[in-house]
Amino acid sequence: HNQVTVECVSAEPLETLLADLAKVNNSRERASKLFQWLITPIPDKMFFRETWEKKPIFVQRKNPDYYKGLFSTAELDRIFREEDVQYGVNLDVTSYTNGKRETLNPPGRVLPYTAWDFYESGCSLRMLNPQAFSSTVWNVLSILQEQFGSMAGANIYLTPPGTQGFAPHYDDIEAFVVQLEGKKHWRVYSPRCQGCLLCDFSSANFDQADIGKPILDVVVEAGDLIYFPRGFIHQGNCLPDAHSLHITISSYQKNSWGDLLQKLVPAALEVAMEEDVEFRRGLPLDYLTYMGVQNSDKEDPRRAKFFSRIDNLMKRLTNYAPLDAAVDQKAKDFIHDCLPPTLTPDELVTSVKGAPTRWEGGQVKDVGVHITTQTQIRILRAQCARLCNDGDAVHLYYTTDNSRVYHKEQLKSFEIKPEYTDAVEFLIHSYPGFVTVGSLPCESAQDRIALAELLFEKGIIHTAEPL
Amino acid sequence: HNQVTVECVSAEPLETLLADLAKVNNSRERASKLFQWLITPIPDKMFFRETWEKKPIFVQRKNPDYYKGLFSTAELDRIFREEDVQYGVNLDVTSYTNGKRETLNPPGRVLPYTAWDFYESGCSLRMLNPQAFSSTVWNVLSILQEQFGSMAGANIYLTPPGTQGFAPHYDDIEAFVVQLEGKKHWRVYSPRCQGCLLCDFSSANFDQADIGKPILDVVVEAGDLIYFPRGFIHQGNCLPDAHSLHITISSYQKNSWGDLLQKLVPAALEVAMEEDVEFRRGLPLDYLTYMGVQNSDKEDPRRAKFFSRIDNLMKRLTNYAPLDAAVDQKAKDFIHDCLPPTLTPDELVTSVKGAPTRWEGGQVKDVGVHITTQTQIRILRAQCARLCNDGDAVHLYYTTDNSRVYHKEQLKSFEIKPEYTDAVEFLIHSYPGFVTVGSLPCESAQDRIALAELLFEKGIIHTAEPL
Amino acid sequence: HNQVTVECVSAEPLETLLADLAKVNNSRERASKLFQWLITPIPDKMFFRETWEKKPIFVQRKNPDYYKGLFSTAELDRIFREEDVQYGVNLDVTSYTNGKRETLNPPGRVLPYTAWDFYESGCSLRMLNPQAFSSTVWNVLSILQEQFGSMAGANIYLTPPGTQGFAPHYDDIEAFVVQLEGKKHWRVYSPRCQGCLLCDFSSANFDQADIGKPILDVVVEAGDLIYFPRGFIHQGNCLPDAHSLHITISSYQKNSWGDLLQKLVPAALEVAMEEDVEFRRGLPLDYLTYMGVQNSDKEDPRRAKFFSRIDNLMKRLTNYAPLDAAVDQKAKDFIHDCLPPTLTPDELVTSVKGAPTRWEGGQVKDVGVHITTQTQIRILRAQCARLCNDGDAVHLYYTTDNSRVYHKEQLKSFEIKPEYTDAVEFLIHSYPGFVTVGSLPCESAQDRIALAELLFEKGIIHTAEPL
Amino acid sequence: HNQVTVECVSAEPLETLLADLAKVNNSRERASKLFQWLITPIPDKMFFRETWEKKPIFVQRKNPDYYKGLFSTAELDRIFREEDVQYGVNLDVTSYTNGKRETLNPPGRVLPYTAWDFYESGCSLRMLNPQAFSSTVWNVLSILQEQFGSMAGANIYLTPPGTQGFAPHYDDIEAFVVQLEGKKHWRVYSPRCQGCLLCDFSSANFDQADIGKPILDVVVEAGDLIYFPRGFIHQGNCLPDAHSLHITISSYQKNSWGDLLQKLVPAALEVAMEEDVEFRRGLPLDYLTYMGVQNSDKEDPRRAKFFSRIDNLMKRLTNYAPLDAAVDQKAKDFIHDCLPPTLTPDELVTSVKGAPTRWEGGQVKDVGVHITTQTQIRILRAQCARLCNDGDAVHLYYTTDNSRVYHKEQLKSFEIKPEYTDAVEFLIHSYPGFVTVGSLPCESAQDRIALAELLFEKGIIHTAEPL
Repeated sequence: HNQVTVECVSAEPLETLLADLAKVNNSRERASKLFQWLITPIPDKMFFRETWEKKPIFVQRKNPDYYKGLFSTAELDRIFREEDVQYGVNLDVTSYTNGKRETLNPPGRVLPYTAWDFYESGCSLRMLNPQAFSSTVWNVLSILQEQFGSMAGANIYLTPPGTQGFAPHYDDIEAFVVQLEGKKHWRVYSPRCQGCLLCDFSSANFDQADIGKPILDVVVEAGDLIYFPRGFIHQGNCLPDAHSLHITISSYQKNSWGDLLQKLVPAALEVAMEEDVEFRRGLPLDYLTYMGVQNSDKEDPRRAKFFSRIDNLMKRLTNYAPLDAAVDQKAKDFIHDCLPPTLTPDELVTSVKGAPTRWEGGQVKDVGVHITTQTQIRILRAQCARLCNDGDAVHLYYTTDNSRVYHKEQLKSFEIKPEYTDAVEFLIHSYPGFVTVGSLPCESAQDRIALAELLFEKGIIHTAEPL
Repeated sequence: HNQVTVECVSAEPLETLLADLAKVNNSRERASKLFQWLITPIPDKMFFRETWEKKPIFVQRKNPDYYKGLFSTAELDRIFREEDVQYGVNLDVTSYTNGKRETLNPPGRVLPYTAWDFYESGCSLRMLNPQAFSSTVWNVLSILQEQFGSMAGANIYLTPPGTQGFAPHYDDIEAFVVQLEGKKHWRVYSPRCQGCLLCDFSSANFDQADIGKPILDVVVEAGDLIYFPRGFIHQGNCLPDAHSLHITISSYQKNSWGDLLQKLVPAALEVAMEEDVEFRRGLPLDYLTYMGVQNSDKEDPRRAKFFSRIDNLMKRLTNYAPLDAAVDQKAKDFIHDCLPPTLTPDELVTSVKGAPTRWEGGQVKDVGVHITTQTQIRILRAQCARLCNDGDAVHLYYTTDNSRVYHKEQLKSFEIKPEYTDAVEFLIHSYPGFVTVGSLPCESAQDRIALAELLFEKGIIHTAEPL
Repeated sequence: HNQVTVECVSAEPLETLLADLAKVNNSRERASKLFQWLITPIPDKMFFRETWEKKPIFVQRKNPDYYKGLFSTAELDRIFREEDVQYGVNLDVTSYTNGKRETLNPPGRVLPYTAWDFYESGCSLRMLNPQAFSSTVWNVLSILQEQFGSMAGANIYLTPPGTQGFAPHYDDIEAFVVQLEGKKHWRVYSPRCQGCLLCDFSSANFDQADIGKPILDVVVEAGDLIYFPRGFIHQGNCLPDAHSLHITISSYQKNSWGDLLQKLVPAALEVAMEEDVEFRRGLPLDYLTYMGVQNSDKEDPRRAKFFSRIDNLMKRLTNYAPLDAAVDQKAKDFIHDCLPPTLTPDELVTSVKGAPTRWEGGQVKDVGVHITTQTQIRILRAQCARLCNDGDAVHLYYTTDNSRVYHKEQLKSFEIKPEYTDAVEFLIHSYPGFVTVGSLPCESAQDRIALAELLFEKGIIHTAEPL
Repeated sequence: HNQVTVECVSAEPLETLLADLAKVNNSRERASKLFQWLITPIPDKMFFRETWEKKPIFVQRKNPDYYKGLFSTAELDRIFREEDVQYGVNLDVTSYTNGKRETLNPPGRVLPYTAWDFYESGCSLRMLNPQAFSSTVWNVLSILQEQFGSMAGANIYLTPPGTQGFAPHYDDIEAFVVQLEGKKHWRVYSPRCQGCLLCDFSSANFDQADIGKPILDVVVEAGDLIYFPRGFIHQGNCLPDAHSLHITISSYQKNSWGDLLQKLVPAALEVAMEEDVEFRRGLPLDYLTYMGVQNSDKEDPRRAKFFSRIDNLMKRLTNYAPLDAAVDQKAKDFIHDCLPPTLTPDELVTSVKGAPTRWEGGQVKDVGVHITTQTQIRILRAQCARLCNDGDAVHLYYTTDNSRVYHKEQLKSFEIKPEYTDAVEFLIHSYPGFVTVGSLPCESAQDRIALAELLFEKGIIHTAEPL
């Protein structure tokens, strides 16, 4: 069934929830709990079994405050006022009237004076990367990305009463539409063809005539949620009596088995050509005379033989597929896509960003406070760093120097010398447990401390107690 | 004489000075007063007549608080902690030991933990664009750029006791070394050659043996100032008993008559070729046989004739020099180089950034508050916008959308239609006076308001009263 | 066995052979006969069954004139004198002395005066594209490329008595070393590792100590041949009493099953992602926690399941492999690599290059001689044109406008409108038979003639009788 | 007057003339004689004094064979047949009908079959670089370029009877229209404005209505010549009874005093800024407030002062103008533009291209024939090489390795070591005399021979007697 209705009268405010989650010891558990909050009352196991990537669902909560604190139009106003938001880069002004979709971005910076003028004239406003401007959105997404093992993104949509900002279309991501203010009339439609289901690219705009009847047709109010998988056509419009503000949380863009195979298969072929002479043997002298589109209608026994040989080679290919290395390619992309972690107060005082070293009274203080073999450390998040083998050398890729702006920083990594790889792996696998620096499997105490210092300076680890 | 000593016991704090300056009605006057504060007690007229571009000068004030509030190491510590400062981009770690100059930047973000470690080990820290991180530095420089009519930049230098961070060298800018904390031993040397005086590029590092005796050799203490023109070699080192923090305020990079001629002369030649057939006539058939380096020792009467013809043409060139257009090229560069203005509270509430339009209580408020023909307006700063003729069209270039980071935004401009140019020029020349929108020399009231709206939205003008 | 010795006393001169081949009606048959001449007395079937891509072979003929007419040092001297041969582009000057390999190319054009000076001082000369300078080499290679279905290339090597020009190495092509003048001592060695056999890239230079004992160690004299497959290490040196001139005819560079798979496999994956939802399904939420190099030592049942899913998908991939389209990609590369055909006198007068249209006596003659429905036509060579499907449109790719210089011209093609594809396919499949223009399966006589005119103008077809 | 009529019945054939010129000892004299032939019967002194760059002139000879042998349509037919002429690159197909100018180039190679079809349908054919295909045109232009000291180029125009191929326009070169076959009606018009006379760029096509009345309106027949300077509008059309073939020989593109000043003036400014502190002084602090287009109507005494300062600096600029170095920049461009020299039989046997070194009878012959101190040498052409000072080093630039295709080869040069510059200059200035290698002002005989060998190998010098 596509709808769950429940009265969630007693939900704790998001601020309290996030403060509680900050005390959860393991970032994966934290992610799981926050995701559960997002889809409550559906149990997450059930959600992933029955709904995820399968069908849309509508969760009606009759509690306008359920998502309160995540984002608001007042926050948007503040952002316009205080931050450097650029039309066309961070904010789109759009309209969809009489079947015609338009984008109306002027050049330059967004200010309340101009943005609200657009809004009053019936335009929708879409903020493209609210995580760069809102600490709460950043925090929520940075937690959720550990749930998905794939980038969690977000857009904000503000729509004036009685208008629609976008034409019907489908996207290439799993979408969680979180209604924050007002209400919106949503219609979701089945994919139009086999190839659209879970499609890996977004559609053009559809005409109303071409999309059939909705399989979900509901009015979503503040505190409600709609989820729909990639490939499902959707459109939302405001009723005459209320504006709408929602945030769409998205994930699983280019995160399919096929996306992994795109890394794996060319690598497999490379290995096969190195290791298996069958792949290096020459093609038949005459193959161009019976193969190719121009010969595809020919009845030639050599064609069958050729097909069979290809078949055989493609089957052998699996034997050479460097799967873990291909997963590492995906992992590196993910590390690059990740938001940097938001630190809890405890994490702050135990990591490099909150280290006590400072300028005070005309001189440097606490500069000598360094890591010892007794210091207990762990990585900051289950997935804030990843060890990957790049041909000859091993590198540690990490998220802690990423920017809140997507790919503004390049992928961060540094080489891990062979004598340190075991220690780094040990650290990663020990999470969420703390280990003493002295227990790292390195050759000398000096090495152990040097490694810990390095990881601490990059913000990858924190200590059990403030230094 | 190279030194002025005065006791400035009663200087008002910078904060008060800036608040007072905010009330000065004319940005040029404001710039002039702030510059006077910088070089007090030397009268600015005297300074520009006797010192500027001519010789170094040392102003000793015996008042460590004179420049207080401009910047401090505590502020630097805060910036390291709170802002995204990158080694090698915003901060350089340097040392100069036993005649060897080194730069020791690690990759990544600056944090107190690592930065103060470098400092404690004897390295100097140079912050390259403090105006991007300190509002006071931004404010001061954005005022001073109107004094110079040329970009005002700044670097911050923090040096540990008993060390030196840089080798002797000269720069390509006019330098005002403002001592903020501690003290520093400075030595300034005369240019080493005719071509070094007012040199338009910076030197490599000099060996101590090659620079002769200093013409200025002083200990600069907090509240003191040294100025020296481009081309003067200088070096500063900390005494064992005190660290040093200074800010070097710079200007007049590539702002010489020659720099203007580099814009002017090719343009003059282009005009001459269009307008004067003498420039289009063919060279003599045989000129390659007697001219050129290979023939430069030849005694050939044709050489003298050729030289004389060239002489004559170069003299004629002056007649075709489009001087105002070339100045506009310089002006556009300056507009691009400028820091955006820092708004006073009064300016804020009368300009687009502080316009009352806002989201409040679930809806947009004051969106209808617009400009009328009675509204009194003026440009925000004497030089925040400039009308330039670019061949066929006229554009208005403006600074208000510039970034605090040098050239992070491209040069901003938009076309001014012919029917609006007079009004824009009228506005610019009316500064610092306000004029009513109705008085703009446009064809219709509608045009007057449309132009004012446009300029208001770009932040180029503000109103006499809040809208 | 690696050696065939036979006395070929009565071979006809190459010139006569080529004249005879010009009368062979089918270009593939022509290619086969010329290849048979190359490897005589080994029957070609036996050669391809037992030797090709398997082992080196030496054919000793005791007839120094066997390959006479193909190329000579006298021809090289003529080329240096008359053609624009550039050092480093068309000719390399090399030496290999005391285990050290050097390239000694000066800049600029090759002239006998400098080239022979290098030769006299003991350097070898390697001409890189003799087909661009020698019509006979061009003719021979343009015929042989139809035998191989893969580009046939050539280098010329001239070595002074008592010297060696190259270090031991292996290449990435099948090599036919044709001794033209003098003699050379050749040693061929087995591949040093599994991956070297039929290797798809050339090796660096080997040290003598690392290559073991030769499996072939012979003195090759004019009229003899050595063949060895890619991956076999080889070196040749001149004996003190004679210089050596040989031409190495090569083919099958990047022409293996693996090379075809490199076109096929990414295309298969693209199709699979479009057509099979299994490829579009999301990866498991937690796969990054147990997959990847960092987890490769983990014993986790999810790993086996993941491997098995990948296995399954890779097997399904075969179902989506667009094999004929991938062969077309290879075919297009081949069409681009091909030498343009050399026309026989008969072909010349029946094709566009020899059409009678001309300027004569102050006016144009025979310009009205055009194709009619009675004209009999066929494509010029079995493989001079190829019909390929490129997504939405069908294009005809052709070799007749290629250059004798490798890839100097870009790949030539034009679109074939849907109403013409059958006729073009009919023409291609009718080869070597002629068909009347009237028999082309087009809608109208006008269409038939328009198509024939187009193909005639591009030099792709010729007529049975001169127009 | 614009017209010269003379009967030239007894002109010697061009072949004979060129053979005679080959015996002229000095390439400049040779150039002068050939140019005299081109404009006969006008004496060249008179031509350059009264006509060149001043006005059009028509030379009517009543001798259709006067220019015979230079080029013909039969030669064009041969070129289409034998050479790789490409539509759009080497040949344009054009028409001008009812005031509409069209270019009809198909893609691909030109063949008689297609080219003559265009011609018969009324299109004109323009061959863009006949010097690459015709040895005679190459020879003539390579001689004439020494007359002009500027590149001599050519286009061929073939026009069918009763048609016109081009719209009225003017060009940026001095044009010598040499009628080779048939006849053409030519109209030449005065420049339309002051700036068009000797214009340095070509015009767009004019409408007939806009060009006024011709100042020259004649029927040009084979053997006749029209000359007109750049900037003069012209058009030619064929009468119904005859086709037309002409070659336009052109020169003096970008070869004006202004073009030289474009090299000179920026260099002068660079020197001035290094040597004269007045150019390095800062601009007035407030110049942007009274200068610039926005202030150009202001009456401000500072403007006059500013203008006067600029005036003064521009006058000083002349003192720093490195004229010979700027001429060298022009000279280098010319050396790059030059056609390579065509060698006479005598020159061939005395230069590197005809050196006796060769392969003969299985070995190298005459490789030991080298230059001695007794060998007499000179540069091959007065201007085939030029010594230029490029900052720190001296290079010799030369034309002998240029291509017949414009700029196909990059500018050729090599460094001349300081100890050789005197010798090279001596050689250049000794032309047309021969000097012995022994007389070169070098330090040792070995140096003299090494330098001579180098120049000989580059084809820059030849010897008095065959080596």
